[in-house]
Amino acid sequence: MSEKIAVAILGASGYTGAELVRMLALHPRVRIAALTADRKAGSTMAEAFPQFTGLDLPRLIAIGEVDWASIDLVFCALPHATTQEVLKAVPASIKIVDLSADFRLSDPEAYAYWYGHPHKALELQAEAVYGITELDRAAVAKARLVANPGCYTTCGQLPVIPLLEAGAIDPDQIVIDAKSGVSGAGRAAKEANLFTEVSEGFHAYGVGHHRHMAELEQGFSKAAGRPVRAAFTPHLVPMNRGILSTIYVKLQPGRTAEDLHAILAERYQGEHFVKVLPFGTSPQTRHVRGSNFVFMSVAADRRPGHAILLCVLDNLVKGASGQAIQNMNVMMGWPETTGLEQIGLFP
Amino acid sequence: MSEKIAVAILGASGYTGAELVRMLALHPRVRIAALTADRKAGSTMAEAFPQFTGLDLPRLIAIGEVDWASIDLVFCALPHATTQEVLKAVPASIKIVDLSADFRLSDPEAYAYWYGHPHKALELQAEAVYGITELDRAAVAKARLVANPGCYTTCGQLPVIPLLEAGAIDPDQIVIDAKSGVSGAGRAAKEANLFTEVSEGFHAYGVGHHRHMAELEQGFSKAAGRPVRAAFTPHLVPMNRGILSTIYVKLQPGRTAEDLHAILAERYQGEHFVKVLPFGTSPQTRHVRGSNFVFMSVAADRRPGHAILLCVLDNLVKGASGQAIQNMNVMMGWPETTGLEQIGLFP
Amino acid sequence: MSEKIAVAILGASGYTGAELVRMLALHPRVRIAALTADRKAGSTMAEAFPQFTGLDLPRLIAIGEVDWASIDLVFCALPHATTQEVLKAVPASIKIVDLSADFRLSDPEAYAYWYGHPHKALELQAEAVYGITELDRAAVAKARLVANPGCYTTCGQLPVIPLLEAGAIDPDQIVIDAKSGVSGAGRAAKEANLFTEVSEGFHAYGVGHHRHMAELEQGFSKAAGRPVRAAFTPHLVPMNRGILSTIYVKLQPGRTAEDLHAILAERYQGEHFVKVLPFGTSPQTRHVRGSNFVFMSVAADRRPGHAILLCVLDNLVKGASGQAIQNMNVMMGWPETTGLEQIGLFP
Amino acid sequence: MSEKIAVAILGASGYTGAELVRMLALHPRVRIAALTADRKAGSTMAEAFPQFTGLDLPRLIAIGEVDWASIDLVFCALPHATTQEVLKAVPASIKIVDLSADFRLSDPEAYAYWYGHPHKALELQAEAVYGITELDRAAVAKARLVANPGCYTTCGQLPVIPLLEAGAIDPDQIVIDAKSGVSGAGRAAKEANLFTEVSEGFHAYGVGHHRHMAELEQGFSKAAGRPVRAAFTPHLVPMNRGILSTIYVKLQPGRTAEDLHAILAERYQGEHFVKVLPFGTSPQTRHVRGSNFVFMSVAADRRPGHAILLCVLDNLVKGASGQAIQNMNVMMGWPETTGLEQIGLFP
Repeated sequence: MSEKIAVAILGASGYTGAELVRMLALHPRVRIAALTADRKAGSTMAEAFPQFTGLDLPRLIAIGEVDWASIDLVFCALPHATTQEVLKAVPASIKIVDLSADFRLSDPEAYAYWYGHPHKALELQAEAVYGITELDRAAVAKARLVANPGCYTTCGQLPVIPLLEAGAIDPDQIVIDAKSGVSGAGRAAKEANLFTEVSEGFHAYGVGHHRHMAELEQGFSKAAGRPVRAAFTPHLVPMNRGILSTIYVKLQPGRTAEDLHAILAERYQGEHFVKVLPFGTSPQTRHVRGSNFVFMSVAADRRPGHAILLCVLDNLVKGASGQAIQNMNVMMGWPETTGLEQIGLFP
Repeated sequence: MSEKIAVAILGASGYTGAELVRMLALHPRVRIAALTADRKAGSTMAEAFPQFTGLDLPRLIAIGEVDWASIDLVFCALPHATTQEVLKAVPASIKIVDLSADFRLSDPEAYAYWYGHPHKALELQAEAVYGITELDRAAVAKARLVANPGCYTTCGQLPVIPLLEAGAIDPDQIVIDAKSGVSGAGRAAKEANLFTEVSEGFHAYGVGHHRHMAELEQGFSKAAGRPVRAAFTPHLVPMNRGILSTIYVKLQPGRTAEDLHAILAERYQGEHFVKVLPFGTSPQTRHVRGSNFVFMSVAADRRPGHAILLCVLDNLVKGASGQAIQNMNVMMGWPETTGLEQIGLFP
Repeated sequence: MSEKIAVAILGASGYTGAELVRMLALHPRVRIAALTADRKAGSTMAEAFPQFTGLDLPRLIAIGEVDWASIDLVFCALPHATTQEVLKAVPASIKIVDLSADFRLSDPEAYAYWYGHPHKALELQAEAVYGITELDRAAVAKARLVANPGCYTTCGQLPVIPLLEAGAIDPDQIVIDAKSGVSGAGRAAKEANLFTEVSEGFHAYGVGHHRHMAELEQGFSKAAGRPVRAAFTPHLVPMNRGILSTIYVKLQPGRTAEDLHAILAERYQGEHFVKVLPFGTSPQTRHVRGSNFVFMSVAADRRPGHAILLCVLDNLVKGASGQAIQNMNVMMGWPETTGLEQIGLFP
Repeated sequence: MSEKIAVAILGASGYTGAELVRMLALHPRVRIAALTADRKAGSTMAEAFPQFTGLDLPRLIAIGEVDWASIDLVFCALPHATTQEVLKAVPASIKIVDLSADFRLSDPEAYAYWYGHPHKALELQAEAVYGITELDRAAVAKARLVANPGCYTTCGQLPVIPLLEAGAIDPDQIVIDAKSGVSGAGRAAKEANLFTEVSEGFHAYGVGHHRHMAELEQGFSKAAGRPVRAAFTPHLVPMNRGILSTIYVKLQPGRTAEDLHAILAERYQGEHFVKVLPFGTSPQTRHVRGSNFVFMSVAADRRPGHAILLCVLDNLVKGASGQAIQNMNVMMGWPETTGLEQIGLFP
């Protein structure tokens, strides 16, 4: 086995940080050299996440304590809006995969509109490559800084973008009804995310104004070659992991739902992580749990001239940390599946 | 207290049967006189459902053992397609609330199309009154046989029908993305409904061909004054009870999302069980759990000229047994809330 | 209907407060006259708990705003240790049911030992009556201040105390392995109670040092006529409501497990809320959900000379707010089941 | 990479079969050569378990179709009592790891007592090696047929056996209060295991007469050097995976709870999969989910002279398929962790 690179994980005490550790601890080309967590600095990773008991991992430190000279690549899993200033301070020789939303919007005005303040690292933003691996592979391979996409965005763009690029659907009639497990909300102690407030119930949130809309529409607009606005409604499912997008689209004249399936099947043929299931199959989030896989399919709509797309992934893996590692593999020129072989844990 | 009527519940060993018992056992105008359950005949209700331990209830018997002469009203909670012949044999003096799908479609051809065989009780079908109480109150009051609506249908028609009747939305652009708890699937032992197959995951089912579509479209067509086809996708939520419908509609020219809210607020003003929450509020299934309430609201859609409706109810109560009792109250001329006062059990 | 009394609920924005409102709103002898919640003062109850939408309830106020002259009885559902000073200020003419732990330990030294500070309302503590209704009914009837028991304590003492009083089991060999739903932890935003930290997993907590031990041992010691120490281990079940106690006891010479069952069956004969199921039956928490019922049974132990007791209740009802209302009914001389008729909500 | 052996999995359409496939598909020394499932013969593994979509796996066949000449080792995951005749027919050159209960009891009379019929493969039973890997490693290494232990048994014996062997606890005073996720009940369609019957509730089952008692007592008796009867009560937790055993033990004179911790810490020092957490720590099932790890600890008991042991594992991994692979690794002389490196999937 060839030599290992040294990686740092910033924000290791959150769920996406822990997912990075879970997968990178067994990645044959990587050595975890630094783990940061400001409030829990000084603790061991096993204290923050007992599933790591027995693993040989560095102790949690503050970001300021990272010895950048010893690091080859950094995964940044910090909260949105806190990342810009941190990453400005990272030496230019170090590759970065950023899991926050801070570098996902390429247009500074769009960023300011959706996040309520001007971007604080415009030069970095200009060079950042948005990285849904299967859609942006060539650019990711050359990037120094990859903006890792949001979970909802990955689950919305993977099935829709090829159809827009093929001109097969109407860009103005896209409805994404998305449902996510609770881990997408992170580990912060909020009343709304208590077990008692979430279990045995279901609701929509952020109706009409969720920030992942900006990312979705950025990708759709690029694919359609003109500005696109799409309906997007996220819902909270009483489960830990998983996203399902149920997507209603209007076919361009002459197209059928089966055509859409054929376009997607061809587009993702040969992709290891994206599986297009037979037409009419209903993919389930539980079958991709803990894995980097995406399952999608297409079904008929009762309304003539319309079709339904269904897509599932694990929000913490392909929707966050798994895709981050996939992007690292591409950036480093390694086989894309390295360290990501795990099969869905069901039941 | 005035005299009580004697009711029979056919199919008392299923979930909707048990819900009827739960509420009717405390209903001040009703005496439970007969409970049937063919396979479990001979058992006590407490053996089938231990929550009834200590209650004074008749033993479960076979349908053939019911002494119809002693019964005033029957709730029929039998499986779909088995109900027609059973109800033909019920004496004409007995009122009926049927919770199956057998009498919901008024058009015999539609029934034959969706259920795959001709209807076996056409005369009863002709007289049956479809009963979403708030929409069909006057007809229910005069009915002998009420076809109690499906859970998805109630959750889809209550917010949409007033908007169609007002001409405020485009009948051809209705998308109902519905999510239901597992109790809607009944108590039959099926691999697909095992805890291990359902928990910690999410999926759509019956995509493009669920039978509740027929009911939805029947109501929408009547309200629109012409045939309507709507998209309807049911999903299975890992929870026991509750339905949320997220409904995407296209506004008629000149209409706004706020207009829709105003139409619904006016339509349901004074209704005890249907609450229109403030514009933009996201109703949650957990807040109506175990109650006969419906919470709904309207929100903006990112796409200009569109709006989003949100509606929740408990599929076993307002979606089945609660509405059945509400319909009985109307048929008997009693206050509509009698025996249905229970507030949502949260958490 | 006779005249209603005016009650105040202190701490109405927590789960036990909301449970009180849920049941008292339909109680025929009670009018809810004041609701307090310091941080949420000014809000409506429907804002804090949307299940109350449409109910005619007073707005949430601060405790200092309560007009005591208009109140007949107060339910105090404040956090432990905050209650003593609040209740000292309540006029002596007002009856009190306190749901906190502050007045449960009759020995001031025991209080100081377990809670780490001297008791601040010793006179009230001296007059407080500990109230598991079925065990302390006569004293509750005469009390001005009832200390409403803890959820674990009620679920442990109801099956054990009659056996100790009968001299049927060894007081030194009692093991209570208890399992509770998450609502027992309250509505405070803590990382440990997030959905993601609780669902799909199981663990013990407070092993060897949980404060309900003090209450359990106080009751056991009184029943045994000498100091008793019992093993008690609470566990967190990924569900909202319910407690199951699995209790391992050693039989006194000549006694059998069946004897224990007979003692309990006789002791609770005629009790509306406590049901002793047939020997060997396994009671389930789900069947008492939302109700004030207790189901218990006795089973054989593989070890000769031992037996196993099983007991379930809903921690928010019989384990808190339901028993509080039951105690109020006794204090007021009303039928004990008034307002508490609700049957278990299953599924 | 060295050459791979060919394995067959009998009973691949159940949960333990699927777990074997999940881990063996990535095992570097193994090729899955045959998969059987009588009722689903002819299907692909991805049809039975969609998480395997895209994997190159043999089609499901009937047991009679297996070409034994091509097989080196067989995992048998068939239902209890069906295994004896099947394994008699397997050529003697093939190694066997049997996950059923059929060969776990070494005493034919004990088998007949607990299973209600004489054993049908007494010669195989005589040679079978009971295999909790950490306790029976040397014997497993030489075995042809390993009887893979039950999930409850592994979770009960790992913490208790070293203490019995050290003479540190009283063999007559062992109480095992065990709690398991639902996957332990298998994939058979039974009403009792429906989501609606299991979620949001908790109960004990098999109280006083569960078959894993026989296994537990067999191990305890051997370790104590005399017949032992232990209390064992299994409970069903509304979660998919995981077992927690809360074990109450009586210390031998002069022993302390801390002594027990020291004995276990020393006994499992150097074991990769068994981690003894610091004294008083409460292990959680969620932290070993999907992994082959066992976390255990010791805590004080309120009763003088007693202690509490806590132990967790994933019932489908260390409690079944993971330990089966661990045993195969030992039988083949490979590093014991081969193919079992996966870290707990949390949340």
